[in-house]
Amino acid sequence: MTVNKIHTDPELGFDVPALPGMAISDVQTPSLIIDMESFNNNLKRMAEVIAPYNVSLRPHAKMHKSIDVARQQLAQDKTTGICCQKVSEAEVFARAGISDILITNQVCDQVKIERLAGIAALGCRLSVCVDNKANINALSAEAKKRNVRIHCLVELDCGAGRCGVAGAEQVIELATAIKEAEHLIFDGLQAYQGSIQHELDNDKRKTVLNAVIKQVKACLDSLAAVGLSCDVVSGGGTGSFLFEASSGVYTEVQCGSYAFMDADYGRIHNQDGKRLDKADWKNALFILTSIMSTAKDGQAVCDAGLKAQSVDSGLPVVFGRDDIAYINCSDEHGVIEDKQNKLKINDKLHLVPGHCDPTCNLHDWYVCVSDGVVVDLWPISARGKAW
Amino acid sequence: MTVNKIHTDPELGFDVPALPGMAISDVQTPSLIIDMESFNNNLKRMAEVIAPYNVSLRPHAKMHKSIDVARQQLAQDKTTGICCQKVSEAEVFARAGISDILITNQVCDQVKIERLAGIAALGCRLSVCVDNKANINALSAEAKKRNVRIHCLVELDCGAGRCGVAGAEQVIELATAIKEAEHLIFDGLQAYQGSIQHELDNDKRKTVLNAVIKQVKACLDSLAAVGLSCDVVSGGGTGSFLFEASSGVYTEVQCGSYAFMDADYGRIHNQDGKRLDKADWKNALFILTSIMSTAKDGQAVCDAGLKAQSVDSGLPVVFGRDDIAYINCSDEHGVIEDKQNKLKINDKLHLVPGHCDPTCNLHDWYVCVSDGVVVDLWPISARGKAW
Repeated sequence: MTVNKIHTDPELGFDVPALPGMAISDVQTPSLIIDMESFNNNLKRMAEVIAPYNVSLRPHAKMHKSIDVARQQLAQDKTTGICCQKVSEAEVFARAGISDILITNQVCDQVKIERLAGIAALGCRLSVCVDNKANINALSAEAKKRNVRIHCLVELDCGAGRCGVAGAEQVIELATAIKEAEHLIFDGLQAYQGSIQHELDNDKRKTVLNAVIKQVKACLDSLAAVGLSCDVVSGGGTGSFLFEASSGVYTEVQCGSYAFMDADYGRIHNQDGKRLDKADWKNALFILTSIMSTAKDGQAVCDAGLKAQSVDSGLPVVFGRDDIAYINCSDEHGVIEDKQNKLKINDKLHLVPGHCDPTCNLHDWYVCVSDGVVVDLWPISARGKAW
Repeated sequence: MTVNKIHTDPELGFDVPALPGMAISDVQTPSLIIDMESFNNNLKRMAEVIAPYNVSLRPHAKMHKSIDVARQQLAQDKTTGICCQKVSEAEVFARAGISDILITNQVCDQVKIERLAGIAALGCRLSVCVDNKANINALSAEAKKRNVRIHCLVELDCGAGRCGVAGAEQVIELATAIKEAEHLIFDGLQAYQGSIQHELDNDKRKTVLNAVIKQVKACLDSLAAVGLSCDVVSGGGTGSFLFEASSGVYTEVQCGSYAFMDADYGRIHNQDGKRLDKADWKNALFILTSIMSTAKDGQAVCDAGLKAQSVDSGLPVVFGRDDIAYINCSDEHGVIEDKQNKLKINDKLHLVPGHCDPTCNLHDWYVCVSDGVVVDLWPISARGKAW
């Protein structure tokens, strides 16, 4: 089988963008590229950054949706397990042998609760978030039926305004209910401030996180006062994790995007006023795209539109090029401003996606590249697992 | 195998949201629902609307990406073939036996050109758009090598500002090159004004389309003056197709969204000043979503976020409910404003997606529902086919 054969044989019945050994110039576009040096750099860097703190890392697998990426993360120091967001997503990782998964979400539907217990029955240490008492009863009944244990975190809403209860009184009520429920284990708190992660200004993020940490401390004190202790306080994302890690109250951080970076996180500033993608983390994820039309003066059209990326957090950035810019995205096209008419048909560009998580959810494969050569092909195994 | 078994057996190795016979209340969420009455209504309505005009319908399969939907469309009067946007997408439909496909796009990469010729070699009448002379030579060389014919349309940029040439002189140059190229057939023009489709005001769309039709007529006259005749003039979308259909110059229209509708197209006005989704087309596509948290006063959280929909054209609309509204979308959550606290955990809502095409690209299955019961399950076979 020749390399081209994989693309052109209508009887082959599968469709991959590349094979190991191929030059990056032969990779089909649009496709997702992982630059392995930058990716490995980011994983090592995170291990170094959290090393001084008394926290572990539980990377969020909803970002990459890949068993292979998760395994690389779990090979790092102080990484104890992963986060998932959905039951069907957690199933993919549990079946691959990953043995410690926190679903950072409420699981309320009866079929989903059955699937959740099924994951625990595979031997996985499974944790889930709760913010509702009836849900605790449903989880307990199913765990008892399957004779498994399900670990529970009470979700504290610390300003994200989404799920979770905000008052210590409600937290105590739910924690007590978990304690009393058969086959459930009260582990502690989920306290993730999601809405502040992308704030550009580090001082503004700091102000918000100081309040969050104060709220979490007060909640822990209230729980302690009634004899409830928390083994786990989990939260933090790529935009905030240093605050949680150094807080003295969080036991684990849940960063996801640090591993790949994206244009939106790349723009935010760290404690030294530097952009994240110029200081802490390297861009490791790219959409490889080809120019398919240069019919108009001053612009070119590439083959990466909404089918290849999510633009919810802004347009992609052309990596390493200040002379051209991605200025418009439609379903299957991207318009590139090219004032000097430099681009030619079939030229390839590396785009940094605006938002990595939903962009990864559009593709079936990561093309792993090192020194311009494809070294591996990783399936995005949990792509589309939204249940 | 019980219905629940499909969701919960970790050894089953596949994951579907529903099975035929299931009540809609048992369908896993978030998932894509086709309301079969509304869908069939839309297909029949389109056949009626275009009946008086001397045009055929070539529905755009990039919208739905489904062999089953395409077959239903092709069963209607005056529907001669389908459009696709990408080679890998066209392969899916050609392998399913669909025998007339227009790729409304430039195909320039050598591997893609080989795949294109491979589709023609399957016996499919294959057409493709061109706006570049070197591309014509590459297409011709490959078609000759495979001993197939490839039909070509010159893409005329009629204001969308994306691909295509704008001047009659360039059109003549490209048409002549196609005529002279071995194994290529010059069919005519691709003239799609994509950027005006979503303009709310019908009169504004009319003004733009009048200019487009004038430009196309002038181009056809210029071609005729040098002895080049066009069998095909193709274009038009759900927002504009009545103008193209009644123009006397277009031979086929390329509508896609009419079959499913979405919130963005639903808002635009028809010639009577009525919303499209209240007059011409019924909402046939929904994201079924479940409430997973009601911990906060005045709001609920549902399980359909960016993994279940694209928000590039705005947030989804809760179907049939004026009392609640989808107000915020994050990766895996949607926040529903519910001032009267009506929603309860596990309540299900039908969301009309903001934009159908990229939303369909996120899912693996259409759950076909009639009278509240699942009647079929259609794979979204060309999902993710971006090459």
